[in-house]
Amino acid sequence: MRDLVPEPLTFDAFAPFGTVIETAGATSFQINEGFATRYHAVAAADPGEGGTAILSIFRGRRRPDPIRIAMLERHPLASQAFMPLSANDWLVVVAAEPRTDALRCFRASGHQGVQYAKGVWHHPLLVLAAEQDFLVVDRDGPGANLEERSLDAEAFVRL
Amino acid sequence: MRDLVPEPLTFDAFAPFGTVIETAGATSFQINEGFATRYHAVAAADPGEGGTAILSIFRGRRRPDPIRIAMLERHPLASQAFMPLSANDWLVVVAAEPRTDALRCFRASGHQGVQYAKGVWHHPLLVLAAEQDFLVVDRDGPGANLEERSLDAEAFVRL
Repeated sequence: MRDLVPEPLTFDAFAPFGTVIETAGATSFQINEGFATRYHAVAAADPGEGGTAILSIFRGRRRPDPIRIAMLERHPLASQAFMPLSANDWLVVVAAEPRTDALRCFRASGHQGVQYAKGVWHHPLLVLAAEQDFLVVDRDGPGANLEERSLDAEAFVRL
Repeated sequence: MRDLVPEPLTFDAFAPFGTVIETAGATSFQINEGFATRYHAVAAADPGEGGTAILSIFRGRRRPDPIRIAMLERHPLASQAFMPLSANDWLVVVAAEPRTDALRCFRASGHQGVQYAKGVWHHPLLVLAAEQDFLVVDRDGPGANLEERSLDAEAFVRL
């Protein structure tokens, strides 16, 4: 059993796992005669060989307290991006290896999305609001793109 | 000079121009042990030959009233998707041909995005809030992917 205390989500801390999707720190320029700012290419979708990048909406619901981490999943063929569509904080749990002692937990703001790099172990969507929608960019295509793994010991998020 | 009265944005009305990105009417299924609903593949990015689908954030600012439509643009190589990151209504102006009499104006809710199909004429981002952010999925890659065209006569959005 392990307590997981969320860390702030920053570009550098998350770099081993993928990309943070946010305006802060992004290359930006003015477009549309100054009526818009483009924060450019904060992430590049990687749909993998023979894959198409598809857009879906995920509606996450809050899990019972304390939030329990007992498994991880990964997508071996492609990246997967989550961008919140409302400004509530949410949680991102990842691991370099699918072991309890390797878990990292980040608290994302409602203005931060993430893109998990291809093959990165992560927990399914964890919202803190009762319900929260996300735009998800991932792969459609042939092959098995989901692996799930039970952890050797449970962890609980300590908020 | 033409007055443009916004129509409601519906999947069927927008079909000649691309796809509405919303949960309503989407194929959905429960995932994550029931803690999320996936509204699946509401759009498929089309980054075009040799292109990569990239994720950017656009921060749009409201234009002066009355909102004036004097030009259109299109991306001949790839699709471009806009998903609002806050729940404010916004406007989508498109045309089968870059002519004032062909303009269509849709009022999108803050829970509706659109993906312009490759080559579809559209006006740059039009927000109704003072400022509104969008996740944008479009193309990175070689070649000229922007054409702009002045309209033969101005139009003004009548809200």
